[in-house]
Amino acid sequence: MIKRMFIPGPVNLCENTRNSLSKQMIGHRSEDFSKLYREVTGNLRKIMFTDNRIFLSTSSGSGLMEAATRNLVQNKSLHLVNGAFSEKWFKIAKANGKKAEKLEYDWGLGIKAGDVEEQLSKEKFDAVFLTHNETSTGAMNKLEKIAKIVQDFPETMFCVDAVSSLGGVKIETDKLGIDVLLASSQKCLAIPPGLAMASVSDRAIKRASETKNRGHYFDFTEFAKYDKKAQTPSTPAIPQIYALNHKLNEILDEGLEQRFERHWEMAKLVQGWAEEEWALFAEPGYESLTVTAVENNKGLDVSELISKLEKEGFLIGNGYGKLAGRTFRIAHMGDTSLNDVNELLETINEIVEAMN
Amino acid sequence: MIKRMFIPGPVNLCENTRNSLSKQMIGHRSEDFSKLYREVTGNLRKIMFTDNRIFLSTSSGSGLMEAATRNLVQNKSLHLVNGAFSEKWFKIAKANGKKAEKLEYDWGLGIKAGDVEEQLSKEKFDAVFLTHNETSTGAMNKLEKIAKIVQDFPETMFCVDAVSSLGGVKIETDKLGIDVLLASSQKCLAIPPGLAMASVSDRAIKRASETKNRGHYFDFTEFAKYDKKAQTPSTPAIPQIYALNHKLNEILDEGLEQRFERHWEMAKLVQGWAEEEWALFAEPGYESLTVTAVENNKGLDVSELISKLEKEGFLIGNGYGKLAGRTFRIAHMGDTSLNDVNELLETINEIVEAMN
Repeated sequence: MIKRMFIPGPVNLCENTRNSLSKQMIGHRSEDFSKLYREVTGNLRKIMFTDNRIFLSTSSGSGLMEAATRNLVQNKSLHLVNGAFSEKWFKIAKANGKKAEKLEYDWGLGIKAGDVEEQLSKEKFDAVFLTHNETSTGAMNKLEKIAKIVQDFPETMFCVDAVSSLGGVKIETDKLGIDVLLASSQKCLAIPPGLAMASVSDRAIKRASETKNRGHYFDFTEFAKYDKKAQTPSTPAIPQIYALNHKLNEILDEGLEQRFERHWEMAKLVQGWAEEEWALFAEPGYESLTVTAVENNKGLDVSELISKLEKEGFLIGNGYGKLAGRTFRIAHMGDTSLNDVNELLETINEIVEAMN
Repeated sequence: MIKRMFIPGPVNLCENTRNSLSKQMIGHRSEDFSKLYREVTGNLRKIMFTDNRIFLSTSSGSGLMEAATRNLVQNKSLHLVNGAFSEKWFKIAKANGKKAEKLEYDWGLGIKAGDVEEQLSKEKFDAVFLTHNETSTGAMNKLEKIAKIVQDFPETMFCVDAVSSLGGVKIETDKLGIDVLLASSQKCLAIPPGLAMASVSDRAIKRASETKNRGHYFDFTEFAKYDKKAQTPSTPAIPQIYALNHKLNEILDEGLEQRFERHWEMAKLVQGWAEEEWALFAEPGYESLTVTAVENNKGLDVSELISKLEKEGFLIGNGYGKLAGRTFRIAHMGDTSLNDVNELLETINEIVEAMN
């Protein structure tokens, strides 16, 4: 049975995307590849609202999280932490021997711009790291507000993990002064995992060139060097680039505003239902537009709910880490439609009724 | 026109491999995934002749080259350098702030076991890094001889890059005491790029756990932790894992000895032809079984030869880096058959005759 995926990535692939994966290989140093590279990075620029260089990394999003840390932090970084993935970024910094500090909130809460301002005013940081959308808690941070603050500190780079929001939510990279915007393939962009992408500002590339011990595989200056030839430094995941090319054209055909609107409508539908039947885990005002964490205020056996749903052909996510059992997560991203969401919610209602 | 690829990766995909890429996604934390993971790593163990743990890295082979350096080198490493990729490994070590030394040969020559012994007897190294098959020069190192030397230095880890040999040549990992054997997907294994794999010994994992500043994305201890659950630490390149699973079963059906024999026969065919019509670039006795670098002793315009061949539907590689124009490279790996090779060589002969 083909399962309909409402886990927060990987998401279902449409038939055309699946077909695009199975095209014959080309050489990654060929003009055919460069043509593909230019088309993909050009379209990513539109979706990221940027004129910056775009790097395609054969890795998960975590790889580019490590990249941002290794390339940009010479002295000290500030991590805005309100869930598992922002905490992970902090740990990645530590694992790379960086001096990193946390501005920390309880899981589910949103980062407050005023606190960021206070922290940045107190001491100098090389970079601020923000997880736009905390996939672990269903909390989406107020990117514009935080960006406005960080822009007042021109020596501080602004790095944003948009792994689970890019392509579902408008992110105006250049307007917000984002130096590194990173994302991965298997969430709102609705292609398979295996490829991550980042827009990187010229000043971030310059900073990288002056940063010691930045390694090789994720070295921004290597990416920049090969980008000039419309190539990647290492042999890339060609099937995912084929799929991304197909999907970006489809996204631009759908229309970016329409796509963002569809994601907004799905979020409102799921969150309206969750508020009526359960409760939302995220702090009010910070509900994510791409994934909802539903608080299990009925004391239901979440694992049982998930396995019963799976038998009906729907996959949802348990709460992340310490939130397992306390919450469950419904992703509403990628190619998912309002109809799909409606069918899922009805099925959950039926199963829950039978479980009571 | 579908081009027949004789470049040293990516190689052509057979139809079944292409179809396997386009399967629907599954969750990477699901039992379905773990089942796939166990099958793939189990079969890789057979092809690598090892009982060690197998890690699947969503990266190119270069990523795992960086991994080996970051995880295993605490004080100093020895790099056996005889071409572009072994030189690259040395540079990767330097880019990660490691103290690394080179035992260096002119490009095209093979590493001599006696020199390795001399070097290891003089000072203590945490690890020795060997590129089994130098894709840049068509020289294949004598792995058994070097392994025998390194095994006499039990505190020194032995790391082997088999990117362009695994699956085409027998490598008895455990018998040779190889602590890290790394390879990538798009060469002899004949699936698309985007996935690298390594067998890693228990003592290498233990060493990693004691090595500082090893980062996150390529941290062997993270791979080991998730391997116990039959998962990868980061979201993996699922299409490539589908393809690898298909291809490994096909390889084992073909029979490993038969596959190695076919690679041997293709190498003999190409090298016999090259010796008759041109000359071989590699030192005699070190000719690679998977890729041949032909010395352009006719003073021909190699770029012109390559572009004329491409019009006939064949892709070969120019010489690597500083060898461009001086050599050209023919890969004979993956699913390529003796017939394919014969057709290529005849076409080259015809083009060269017309160019004279």
